[in-house]
Amino acid sequence: MIRMRDLSLLTDFYQLTMAQGYCEKGKTEEAVFDLFYRENPCDNGYAVFAGLEQVIEFVENLEFKEEDIEYLRTQGFKERFLDYLRDFKFTGDIYSVPEGSVVFPKEPLFKVEAPILQAQLLETPLLNFINHQALIATKAARITEAAQGKSVLEFGLRRAHGPDAGTYGARAAVIGGCSGTSNVLTGKKFGVKVSGTHAHSWVMSFESELEAFRTYADNFPDSAILLVDTYDTLKSGVPNAIKVFKEMKDKGIDSELFGIRLDSGDLAYLSKEARKMLDQAGLEDAVIVASNNLDEDIISSLNLQGAQIDLYGVGTKLITSYDCPAFGAVYKMSEYNDQPKIKLSDNIEKMTDPGNKKLIRIYDQRSGEIRADLIALKDEVISADRDLVLFDARDTWKTTTLKKGNYQLREMMKPIFKTGKLVYDSPQVAEIKEYAEKEKESLGAEYKRLTNPHIMKVDLSDKLYELKQKLIKENKIEK
Amino acid sequence: MIRMRDLSLLTDFYQLTMAQGYCEKGKTEEAVFDLFYRENPCDNGYAVFAGLEQVIEFVENLEFKEEDIEYLRTQGFKERFLDYLRDFKFTGDIYSVPEGSVVFPKEPLFKVEAPILQAQLLETPLLNFINHQALIATKAARITEAAQGKSVLEFGLRRAHGPDAGTYGARAAVIGGCSGTSNVLTGKKFGVKVSGTHAHSWVMSFESELEAFRTYADNFPDSAILLVDTYDTLKSGVPNAIKVFKEMKDKGIDSELFGIRLDSGDLAYLSKEARKMLDQAGLEDAVIVASNNLDEDIISSLNLQGAQIDLYGVGTKLITSYDCPAFGAVYKMSEYNDQPKIKLSDNIEKMTDPGNKKLIRIYDQRSGEIRADLIALKDEVISADRDLVLFDARDTWKTTTLKKGNYQLREMMKPIFKTGKLVYDSPQVAEIKEYAEKEKESLGAEYKRLTNPHIMKVDLSDKLYELKQKLIKENKIEK
Repeated sequence: MIRMRDLSLLTDFYQLTMAQGYCEKGKTEEAVFDLFYRENPCDNGYAVFAGLEQVIEFVENLEFKEEDIEYLRTQGFKERFLDYLRDFKFTGDIYSVPEGSVVFPKEPLFKVEAPILQAQLLETPLLNFINHQALIATKAARITEAAQGKSVLEFGLRRAHGPDAGTYGARAAVIGGCSGTSNVLTGKKFGVKVSGTHAHSWVMSFESELEAFRTYADNFPDSAILLVDTYDTLKSGVPNAIKVFKEMKDKGIDSELFGIRLDSGDLAYLSKEARKMLDQAGLEDAVIVASNNLDEDIISSLNLQGAQIDLYGVGTKLITSYDCPAFGAVYKMSEYNDQPKIKLSDNIEKMTDPGNKKLIRIYDQRSGEIRADLIALKDEVISADRDLVLFDARDTWKTTTLKKGNYQLREMMKPIFKTGKLVYDSPQVAEIKEYAEKEKESLGAEYKRLTNPHIMKVDLSDKLYELKQKLIKENKIEK
Repeated sequence: MIRMRDLSLLTDFYQLTMAQGYCEKGKTEEAVFDLFYRENPCDNGYAVFAGLEQVIEFVENLEFKEEDIEYLRTQGFKERFLDYLRDFKFTGDIYSVPEGSVVFPKEPLFKVEAPILQAQLLETPLLNFINHQALIATKAARITEAAQGKSVLEFGLRRAHGPDAGTYGARAAVIGGCSGTSNVLTGKKFGVKVSGTHAHSWVMSFESELEAFRTYADNFPDSAILLVDTYDTLKSGVPNAIKVFKEMKDKGIDSELFGIRLDSGDLAYLSKEARKMLDQAGLEDAVIVASNNLDEDIISSLNLQGAQIDLYGVGTKLITSYDCPAFGAVYKMSEYNDQPKIKLSDNIEKMTDPGNKKLIRIYDQRSGEIRADLIALKDEVISADRDLVLFDARDTWKTTTLKKGNYQLREMMKPIFKTGKLVYDSPQVAEIKEYAEKEKESLGAEYKRLTNPHIMKVDLSDKLYELKQKLIKENKIEK
C-alpha cells in the first residue's frame, strides 16, 4: 500500500453532517452509487477515464486520525459519531472501468456498493480525482489527435492549479496521448519520460546568444534543443544555432536529438523559414520544436499551413483544459437497501438510471470498432448468441438490430475492492497509455474528429428501461 | 517551519538542465527575477495576489533527498551537479507584496535576488502556487462583488483540479471574498469557516422527504438548511420544510440558522415563490440558499430579477475560474551580475522592465483611494514632498500631475527572505481576508465593476523609462 499524505478530511462538510445523521439514526443499509458524467468536455466525441489509481490510494489510506477527530469535535460533531470515525474502515465493493478507457456520457463508469455512510463519504474525493484526471486525459487526446502523429509534450506545470494539478495532470496528459512532460515530479512518481531545454534567462545570462548556445550544447549534446527567439529568431537565433550544430558535427559529436525551439511569433512562417535555413546548412536531422499557447485548434491550423514542426510543447491550454476546465462527473445513488432509486428532474436528461447496473460495450465483429454501449441491470444476462435490438432511451422508435455473430460484447467495469479489500492491480502509467491508444483505435474516425463528432449510442437494456419508466411513474408528483 | 510533503522535484526539467549548465560553467553571479502578469483574469479591473504562504513553505523545505538525487542520476545528470544539489540551500533574498493585495498588470509583485542557479530553480513552483491562488482569489473577488454583500460560500471541491486545487483554491477563495467553504481540509488547515447541508441522496435514503428533513433538523437544529428539490421544489420540498420548521418552533427550538437550499430550476422564480410560502407560514427568519452552476454573471442577473436569495453556494465556476482558468504570471530576469537585462519582443507590451525595481502605490490623500502604481528602480528616491508627474510608458504624452500634499506613497513589496532566512510572518487566512477587504475598499467603484472597468495607471519612473529605452536601443537587431 502506498502511503498517501493525509487527505481524509478532503471532503465536503455535508458528507460529514450526513454521515453523522446516518450514524445517529443507525442507518447501516447498503447503497449503490454510480459515477457518470453528462457531456463530453470540449464537445469531444468521447472522454478518457483516468484517476482510478489515486482513488484506490485514497480509499486504502482513508482513516481519521486523532487530530482529524479533534478538529471535527471543534466543529460540533457528536462523540458517538467521532467514535465511529475513529474506527472507520471502508468495507464495501468498488467496480470501475480501467484507466485509459474510452467512455461516453451517461454510462456508469465507477460503482460503489457499501453501507450508505461509507459510500457517501467517498463521493467528494473520488469525484475530485476522477473529474480532474479524466478532464486532462480527454484534452490530451484531443490535442494529440490534432498533432496527427507528431509528439506532444506536456509543459504546463507553472499554470496548473497547484502542485497536484500539475503532477496528476501530467500523468493524465500522458495517459491521454502525450509523449512526456516537463514535470520532473511526475517523471519520478510515475516513471514517465521527462524532457525540456532552456529558457530565455539562460541566453540572457551569457555575454552572447552564441556563447549561451555553445555552452548548452556542450552540456547536453544528446538533447541540444536551443531556444532561438530571445533576440530575433531568424536573424540571430537560428544562425547561431546552426553555427553551434556545425561545430558539434565538426567535433564528431553524433547527437541523439538536436534542434531549435520556437516560442513566439508566427510559428507557421518561422518554422518553414527555419527549416529551409537548417536544411541549407545540411542539418536535415535537426528537429523543430514549437511552443507558445498551443491547443488543438492552433495545432490543426499549423498543420493546414504546412508548418515544419516536429514536436509540440503544450502548456496552459492542456494543463487547465482551458476552454472546458471542468469534467462534470457526478455520483448518484441508484439503489438503497435493495430498492432501486431514481432522482427525478424536469429535464429527462438529468434523471438518473435506477438499480445496480453494469456497462457492456458492443464491438463490431469484423472491424473491431465500438458499435454502442449498453447499460443493463447487474444480474441481466446479455449474450452475443442472439440478435440484439438497441433503442434510444428517449426516442424509443430509433432502433438498431445487431445480427448474432456480427458483434462482440465486453463488460467494462472490473472489481477494484471486494468487502474493503483491494483486488485490483493498478497498471503502470506506460501500460495505461498503451491501453488508451488501443481504446482510441477502437473508435471510428468519425467519433474522433474534433468538431461535431458522431455521438456514440449509449442505450438501456429493455429491463432497465422498464424499471426506469416504472419508477418515474411511481415517484412523480402531479403538477 | 511547517513540514511540507516533498515537492522539491515539482519543477520543469529545463530548470534542472539549466542549473547543471550554470553549475558546470561555475556561474555563481547574482540575478534578479521579477514575477508579474500581463492581463487581469476575466477582464477584471485588478487581481488579488495570493499563494505567498505556500511559496514560503516551499522555499523553506527545498532540499534534494537521496531518492531525488537517485532519480536525477537515472536522468543523466552529472555527479558534480548532484553533489551540488545534495547540499542545496536557498541563500538569497525574496520580496513580495502581501497576500490579499490588490495588484495590476505589468508591475513586479514578487522579486528574487539570488545566485542565478537558485533564482532559476524557484521559477516553476512559485509560478505554480501564485498563478493558481491569485486566479481563484481574483475570481472570488468578482463573484462576491456580484453578490453585493450577500455571503458566498465556496462549494467546488469535487470539480477542482485535484486535492491541492480544492484545498488551496478554497483558501484563495476565502482571501478573495468568500465567507467560507465546504472543504473540511481547508477548514482544518487554515482555520476558515466550513459549512454545508445535505445531498439528494440523504432524502432518497428515507421513506419520505418529510422524514429525511425531520431527521436532519433533529440532528443539526442550528444549521438546518434543507435541500428542497429532490422531488418537486414548490409542491413537495418547500411545504415539507415548512412543516419541519414549524415543528421545531413548536418544540421551542430557537435555531441559529435554518432555511432551504435551491439547487436546480429557475432560481429567481423559485426563490421568490419559496420566500412567499415561508413568509406566509410566519418563517420570515428562514434563509434561502441557492446553488447550481452560479457565477458572477448569473448572480448579477438574479439580483436584477429581485431573486430572494440570502446566500450563494458557488462551485465549479469559482474553483476552476471557469471562463478564465489560468493566471498568466511570468518570472523574468531583470538583472544579472549587477547589469540590468531586458527581454525584447516585437510586441512592446511583452518587453520586460529592466533592473532591480520596487513598486510604489500612490493614494489620493483625501479619499484614500489608489490613484496609480509607479514602478521605480530600487535605489531611486520617490518622495511625496514634491509634485509627481506620471506618464504612460507607451503614450508618453499622456501625463498626470499629482500636487504635493494631495497624494501619499506606499512601498508594496516587503522582505520575505534575507540571505536565505525567513524574515516574514505569514498572517492567518482570516487576517489576509480582512486585509484584502481593505485593499478592495481602496479601489474606486469604477475599477471594481465587472464589465469594462477603468484601467489602473501603472507607470514607470523617469529613470526606469530611460534605462528601458537605452537597453532597447543597445539590444535591438536591425531588421
